[in-house]
This record gives sequence, C-alpha cells and structure tokens, in this order.
Amino acid sequence: MGNPMAKNLMKHGYPLIIYDVFPDACKEFQEAGEQVVSSPADVAEKADRIITMLPTSINAVEAYSGANGILKKVKKGSLLIDSSTIDPSVSKELAKEVEKMGAVFMDAPVSGGVGAARSGNLTFMVGGVEEEFAAAQELLGCMGSNVVYCGAVGTGQAAKICNNMLLAISMIGTAEAMNLGIRLGLDPKLLAKILNMSSGRCWSSDTYNPVPGVMDGVPSANNYQGGFGTTLMAKDLGLAQDSATSTKSPILLGSLAHQIYRIMCAKGYSTKDFSAVFQFLREEENF
Amino acid sequence: MGNPMAKNLMKHGYPLIIYDVFPDACKEFQEAGEQVVSSPADVAEKADRIITMLPTSINAVEAYSGANGILKKVKKGSLLIDSSTIDPSVSKELAKEVEKMGAVFMDAPVSGGVGAARSGNLTFMVGGVEEEFAAAQELLGCMGSNVVYCGAVGTGQAAKICNNMLLAISMIGTAEAMNLGIRLGLDPKLLAKILNMSSGRCWSSDTYNPVPGVMDGVPSANNYQGGFGTTLMAKDLGLAQDSATSTKSPILLGSLAHQIYRIMCAKGYSTKDFSAVFQFLREEENF
Amino acid sequence: MGNPMAKNLMKHGYPLIIYDVFPDACKEFQEAGEQVVSSPADVAEKADRIITMLPTSINAVEAYSGANGILKKVKKGSLLIDSSTIDPSVSKELAKEVEKMGAVFMDAPVSGGVGAARSGNLTFMVGGVEEEFAAAQELLGCMGSNVVYCGAVGTGQAAKICNNMLLAISMIGTAEAMNLGIRLGLDPKLLAKILNMSSGRCWSSDTYNPVPGVMDGVPSANNYQGGFGTTLMAKDLGLAQDSATSTKSPILLGSLAHQIYRIMCAKGYSTKDFSAVFQFLREEENF
Amino acid sequence: MGNPMAKNLMKHGYPLIIYDVFPDACKEFQEAGEQVVSSPADVAEKADRIITMLPTSINAVEAYSGANGILKKVKKGSLLIDSSTIDPSVSKELAKEVEKMGAVFMDAPVSGGVGAARSGNLTFMVGGVEEEFAAAQELLGCMGSNVVYCGAVGTGQAAKICNNMLLAISMIGTAEAMNLGIRLGLDPKLLAKILNMSSGRCWSSDTYNPVPGVMDGVPSANNYQGGFGTTLMAKDLGLAQDSATSTKSPILLGSLAHQIYRIMCAKGYSTKDFSAVFQFLREEENF
Repeated sequence: MGNPMAKNLMKHGYPLIIYDVFPDACKEFQEAGEQVVSSPADVAEKADRIITMLPTSINAVEAYSGANGILKKVKKGSLLIDSSTIDPSVSKELAKEVEKMGAVFMDAPVSGGVGAARSGNLTFMVGGVEEEFAAAQELLGCMGSNVVYCGAVGTGQAAKICNNMLLAISMIGTAEAMNLGIRLGLDPKLLAKILNMSSGRCWSSDTYNPVPGVMDGVPSANNYQGGFGTTLMAKDLGLAQDSATSTKSPILLGSLAHQIYRIMCAKGYSTKDFSAVFQFLREEENF
Repeated sequence: MGNPMAKNLMKHGYPLIIYDVFPDACKEFQEAGEQVVSSPADVAEKADRIITMLPTSINAVEAYSGANGILKKVKKGSLLIDSSTIDPSVSKELAKEVEKMGAVFMDAPVSGGVGAARSGNLTFMVGGVEEEFAAAQELLGCMGSNVVYCGAVGTGQAAKICNNMLLAISMIGTAEAMNLGIRLGLDPKLLAKILNMSSGRCWSSDTYNPVPGVMDGVPSANNYQGGFGTTLMAKDLGLAQDSATSTKSPILLGSLAHQIYRIMCAKGYSTKDFSAVFQFLREEENF
Repeated sequence: MGNPMAKNLMKHGYPLIIYDVFPDACKEFQEAGEQVVSSPADVAEKADRIITMLPTSINAVEAYSGANGILKKVKKGSLLIDSSTIDPSVSKELAKEVEKMGAVFMDAPVSGGVGAARSGNLTFMVGGVEEEFAAAQELLGCMGSNVVYCGAVGTGQAAKICNNMLLAISMIGTAEAMNLGIRLGLDPKLLAKILNMSSGRCWSSDTYNPVPGVMDGVPSANNYQGGFGTTLMAKDLGLAQDSATSTKSPILLGSLAHQIYRIMCAKGYSTKDFSAVFQFLREEENF
Repeated sequence: MGNPMAKNLMKHGYPLIIYDVFPDACKEFQEAGEQVVSSPADVAEKADRIITMLPTSINAVEAYSGANGILKKVKKGSLLIDSSTIDPSVSKELAKEVEKMGAVFMDAPVSGGVGAARSGNLTFMVGGVEEEFAAAQELLGCMGSNVVYCGAVGTGQAAKICNNMLLAISMIGTAEAMNLGIRLGLDPKLLAKILNMSSGRCWSSDTYNPVPGVMDGVPSANNYQGGFGTTLMAKDLGLAQDSATSTKSPILLGSLAHQIYRIMCAKGYSTKDFSAVFQFLREEENF
C-alpha cells in the first residue's frame, strides 16, 4: 500500500524521504531521484511531515518507539500521520509519546485497497487534534478522494474497525441469505434484485454480491481473486474484538463473524476475497 | 393487515365476500354493503378469486384444509392467493391440495407493514405457476406498488424470509457497530455518515438507523414505538431457521440473530420495534 | 440398530414378527425361523406388542399412519413403542392417533449406539402413560441395561435431545479449550488431567476426549472412526432446534453447535465421529 | 483473596511482609505483629519470596514494573509468584523482566474462590521453570490442597483460562438444556438425573446445577448468591478471547459464551453467581 500512496505524493510535487524494512521496496523511488534512508529515525531527522503505513500494531510501535524509531529524532512541531490499521488504544499510546516530544500524531487508516491507492481514491478516516486536520488533509488529499475527520486520536481507527465489522457481518449475512434462498428454489439474480429493493439491501448485496453470476467486475465473478483478503478481514475483526473486550461492548454477531473468518483462514480461504464466505457456506453435505 | 388490504380492493371497485374469525372485524365492511359470510368454505362457494391473510402456518392450514376450510367448497379454476408469511414447505403442501381440487394456489407474502397496507404501497413477493401471475398481479396491484414474481410456489415465502433474515442480521450488526463506535469515542451521527458512505452501508444504517438522535421519522426517534415488532421479527427468524434446518443450509449469523430476538422478547422488548436491539445492547455494566 | 435389538429379543425367547423396508434386512431372521411380513399393517394384525425403530420423523409417520401403516390394523389394547429419535411433537401426534384406535403409544429413544445395541446395554428414555411403563420395561429391559421413565408422551424424546444438545455443546467446548491450551503451550494430556479434576470436567473431556493421544479406546484414538457420526449429531441438533423454536426457548450455544455440525457435514466430516470437531478446529492457518 | 491466603501462610509459621494499595487491608496483619510496608518495592527489598495477587493485568504490571514496583528493588535469586489471573502473554513479559534482574518468576493462578482460600483448599496452576517448582510448591501448599505444575511460564494462566472457558460453555449449555427440557415437559430433577448418567454429564450439571430445586448447597439454591460472580467469569472469558485472538485459535462457543456473560453483566446479573445464566434464559416471553 505504501508504494502507490508515495507515488501519488510524488505526482503532487512533494519531495520524499523514504524508509522501508525491505530495501528493495525503495529502489524504484531512489531511481526516480527521491532520498532513501536507513531507519525511521533518519526520516524523522530530515522531514517534519511523516506518513507511516504498517501491517500490525507491533510494527507501528517499533517504527515509532523502537531503537531506531521516529521518536528518537523527531523534530518539535512535526506532523506524524499513521495510516496503519491498528488497535485504537495503541494509536492513543503513540499519540501520548509523540506529544511528549512536542510533535503531533494523527491516526488516519484507509479504506479502499491497492486499486484505490493507485488511483488516489482512498478514504482516510482521521483522528487527532482538530486544528491540525487541515494540515493532514493537504497531504492525504493527494492520495485519497475522501478525507473524513472523525474526532480525537484513535477515532480514525475506531471508525475503520466499526465499518469493517459491520461489513463482515453483512457480507456473511448476505451469503447466508443468498444460499438459503437458492436452496429454497430462488434464482440468485432475482433474489439479489429483491433484496436490493427491500430492507435487506446492503453494500454486500448491491455492490459486491458474493454469489458468482450475479454481478460483473467483483471478486465473486473472478473466483474470489483480488479484493480484500480473508486474512485481512480476520485481522480487522481481531482488532474489533479487542476493542470490544476492553470497552466491555457486546458484539454477538461481530464475535461470531470473527470466528467464521478465523476458521476460513484455516480452511484454505486466507488469500481469497472475503466474499468467498459464500463459497465456504455453499458446499453441499455429501449424502 | 387484512382490513386495509380489503379496503384498497373496494376502492378499486371489487365487490368483496369477507370472512374473519373475529366477527367484529367484518362489521365495517357489512355496513359498507359488502357480503360477510361465516366460514372460509362459504367464501369459496361464492368467490373464484380468494386472498387469505393469516398470522401463522397453523392458521393457514386451518383456513384451507380445516373442517370449514376453503377446500371444502372451492370451485374449479379458482385463484387462491395466500399473503400470510408462513413456512414455504407449508405453502407447497397447500398448493398440492389446491391443485387436486382443480384450482390454483399462489403464495404472496407482503413486506411493508400496516402503513404501506393503508396507502396501497405493499410489496408482494409472489410464488406460483408463471401463467397465473398476471391474474394475481391484477388484484395485488390494487394493494401494493410492487408485485414481484419470484418463481415456483413457495418462493414468495422464501424471498420474504431471506430478506428478513438479512435485515435482522444487518440491524443487529449496525447496532453492535454503532454501540462499539460510541464507546470508542465516535459521535453517533458522524459514525452513521461514515458507514453510509463506506462498505458497511445498509438499509438499517442509512434508512432506519437504530440509534436515537441519528435520524428523524424512524422508530429509534420515537422510543422504538411503531415499526416492525420484535415478536414479528422473531417469528420470521423462526421460519428462516426451520427452512434452513430442513434444507441443511448453514445460517450461523441467522441462527444467532434468531436467538437474540428470542431473548429480547423475554426481556420486555416484544412490542418494541426490532431496531430496539441497539437499546438492548447499549445498557452499561454496573461498575 | 433394529437388527441387534431384535436379536436380543430373540435371545430372551420372544417370538418375532418382522418388517423392514429393505427385505434383505429380514433374511437373517427368516432363516432363524421368525415370521417376516410385508408391511407395518401386517405386523399390527398379528402382534399386540410392537417396537419401531426408524431414522426420521417422516419415516415414523409413514410406518404408523401411512397407507400400509400400523394404524390400519392395530388391535385394541396393543402396546406400541417407538424407539426412533424424532421430534417430540410428532411423538405426541402419533400418540393421539394411536389412542383413538384404543391402543397405547410410548416414545422410547435410545442412547448408546450399535455396540450397546449388540451387547444389550442401550439406555431407553421412555415417555408415555405411567401405568404402561412396567409393560414397556419388560421388553426394553431385554435390549437395554437402563430403562428410564421420563414422564408423559414425548418426554423420552425431550430427554434424548436435551442430553445430545448438551453433549454437542460440551464436546465443541472441550475441543476449543484443548486446542487453545495446546496453542498456549500446554501438553494435551496434562491439560485434560487438569480439566478433569476441575470445574471444566465433562463426559467429553474425561470419557471421550477428542484429542488424539489423550485417551485410548475412543474414536479420537482411531482417526475418529466409529462412534457417533457427525451427521447423526447434526440431525439430533436439528430436532433440538425445532423444539426450541416451537417452545420459544432460547438456545444460543445449542443453535451455534447445530450450525457447526452442519458446516462439518459439508466439509467431509459427515461419517466421522462427532468428536472430530477437534480436528476441524485444529487446522492451522497457512501463513 | 489475598487476605485469607496470607493468613494461611502465617498459620504455617511464615513471617510476612505485607503491602496492599488499600492500607486498611493491612491493619489486621499489623495488629498480629507482621510487617506492613508502603510499596511493592519495599517488599522486594526485604523479602526473597514474594507472592502477588491482583485483579487485572494492568495492576500486575504496575506492581512489578511500576515506579514503586517489585523490580525496582528485587534481590537476585528471589522467587516471585504471581497468583493473579491475567493474560498469559503478560505473565511471559513479566517473567522476562524478572529474569533480567536475576530473579525467578512463576505464574500460579488459583481456582476455588474465597471459601477455598480460607480453608487452604485452593488449586494452584503453576507455570515456570521446572527446577523452581519444588520451592513454589512449599509455599503454595500452605494455601492450597492442589498444586499442579503446568509447564513453562504462562501455562498456569493458560490452564486456568481454558478451564474457565470450558466451564462457562458447559454451564450455559446446561442452562439451555435444562430450560428446553422443562419447557418440553420434563421434571428438572429427573432431567438432571438423566443427564448425569448420560453423555451430557458435566460439573455444571452434576455438582453445581443451575436450576433452583435440583441441588442443595449451591448458588442456585440461594438465589444465585455467593459462588463465582458473573463479572469475574466475563473477565476470564475476556482473557480467553484475547489469547485466542493472538494465537489465531477459533473459539466459536467460547466467544459466544463471552458475549452472553457480557450482556448479563449489563442486565443486572454482574454480582450474581455465573450459574444465574439459567435465570437469564428462563424468563418467559409475554404473550
């Protein structure tokens, strides 16, 4: 994700100072004349606006608070934007540490996938001090068509995981309803049409239908390749679960959705799009 | 429901022959000059197009196959339309018995509630022989703005219960996501706006939001009065459950949604709108 | 199941009159000199104590109320004992019809499997009029070591499905707890020992442990062969589900257990012992 | 819990050095001639065998790694035993820090409640270096009748949370099965008897039955007072959930059990015994 995001910043004329744990990932930028450095600390020494994009909470903590992390050399007044999807409570922790150094931290997770990253159409959900939002928006607007202010630090993450939890629930629900309807004799296209003009309508039924043959241009039309992987959905549901446990919020369907994607990861669906839950439920009993 | 439906038929100039187990329910029509008779069999003796609207499978079986049921005196070639929401396998059974008598049976459950029944804006989901659909549509079109042909007998019921199962799942999912987001510090209106422009969007989030203060004119804005009662949702989920069990279709979230509405019925929510699941989940732990 | 049960009656000196839809199943008895007849009605004509053993509610209804069913020729005062595991409400229906004919019906489902049937060690859970229990016990005692009176007609079935629902729940729970513990670094045998001396102890942990290597002589020690098949457990959970829906009893874990066994049936576990849920959950995610 | 545990150490002749965040809790010991100090660090300065008992992971981290924590003044070679029930990954973290100081850490969570603590009948599940187990056992044996070695650091916690997860599942399952059976017409005592001689048997059905009137001397016989509170069960299930998420272990029933106890905490059951789930499920629908 970091690669296409960085390219869009370049296109908008921003000079870049780049670090990636995999040096190969930086070559392209070096050849294009951008600076490549050897640690997050080095980035912080040279830049006063930094965007981080990391796979897990642990990686994010390392990039900020690690031995060669940003906080080792961060300049006062710097704006640090983390676009990773991580636990909101970790975002809050990082914000506290950043604040101690006289800098500003905002969480700005994205939705939209690699395609949207390339075309500059990501959605950013931004949490942090409101006065700094305009500054963040200037940068994020180069990479996304939608930059939404969500509130205090951590609320960007909160918005993202709440959305994805509801997405997982309605996707599984759509798969269950479509499968049940088909077994009861309904034509899948017709059933989708009925749901979409009724109260069962949802993004998973009308824009990203999980049943092969119902829509074109979606992963279900392409053997569930591409899209948003089951592993990534399981990860986001794990974050929703952790947040729900720590705030004592009941998430009955959210918990079960988490477990279903967990099971799917172990049954060979980890790299398939998360709409493959239809395929998972579809298999017939043998008798 | 039968009352406003019958009135719309009257408005369109159809003479009525009416029966209801509660004689008081017929008075209004008698005073308006319509015929009131004393059993379903009597209706069948005089009419060759009959619409039934009953609360449960058992009532429907009684109205058709009971001692004074329609089948005792049904005329050959009659068109019998059942608008009850019942088990699709019961609709199929009734269709078989009706066919033996040389008449035609269609299942045509409605969505839309009493308000839509009054204004003639119901949606009918119709299952039965395709050649008879035009005849059914002529009548049902007087009472509904949407008459959808779904396929063979029973598929009207199937479409209805699949839609309502997905509705229940996405409503509970919306309630869980909104509640979790609020506890994580998000403003409810803002969170709803974010969901509605993202992949979590569903009818329950954008048209019927369960969180008080987010939308006007929905049950959540009126202490969950009116709308679609929790008891009725629990009933429809029971039908989905039965159909899923008999067709061996896995409905993990659908089953759990069923149990949640079951529990809510026992905790004082039975007459509240089904979006009150937000209130059910919202209550704080005492500590 | 019917075969070894019948043999135990023979051993105790009872003459048999036998019917099975598969004539081959009767050969053995014919060769042994027992009478074989060609319909349930024929059995009823000749015998006044009849035991039925059938796979589903539909088969049981056919055997009693079908065109050549027992009720066509049942003699007044006959004792009819149904050992099938079926919906308790169907047992009650059958009992009513039998009573109209002046005969007595009792439901007496078994637990214990083919092994127990052979050795005469089945458990019978008996529902029906208490005064007739002694008569039933005389016969059932030839086939089972445990004949328990449960109450009115249908309570035999009720006891069976309640037990099996709790069994399914505690088996899945044991599998989840053992799997989690192993992943957290515990030795399976040690964990089983700890559970079995603590409050997590259950039949599934101390007598029928689902983890290979923990116990000898159980299906988990033999690649989950033999024992009580996943398909049969799914069937019994379907009966529990139906009974819970019709009595409006919340079964949150019971419903989910049902769905899990449903999914397992579709994933190649249908003929394995139901303790194979450990294997189903055990598979690792690939990454 | 700390209070009765400390008293049992006194009874065995061990001199105590005591710290509690609530000074009042120490008075009793001061009057009895024991030393009371003003921080965990002060304990560590004077004692080389330390037992900690704290309510949450956060409290445990504070007691060890906080500004006045044990690690500030711990002596080389000290044996530190933590009897708190906390996240096993936190136990492992603490163990690492302790090891760096040249001391030994063991996790030793208990089961058994205040009653068992008073009578010295706790069960300790101990994780840590095996060579130190004998030393730990000497102390823990004064407070518990059962001291079980579970393996490496963290496995004590793992054993505890696996047991309690299975306990929660089988308790809810027992409540569901008993409630369903009662609604199907079975006598509760008889149903319990049948389960207990069958494969549904578990500690929750045979030793701690949740249905009032079935057993004496258990919380269900005393309006669910005493015993193991619903809040505590919800806490332990939260730990199981966290461990399952971080190890990617599917816990379908465990997750749902967690959510059920979460909901119960919000519905007025937080201080009742966890067997009150029967009461929670028992309430009838009003119609």
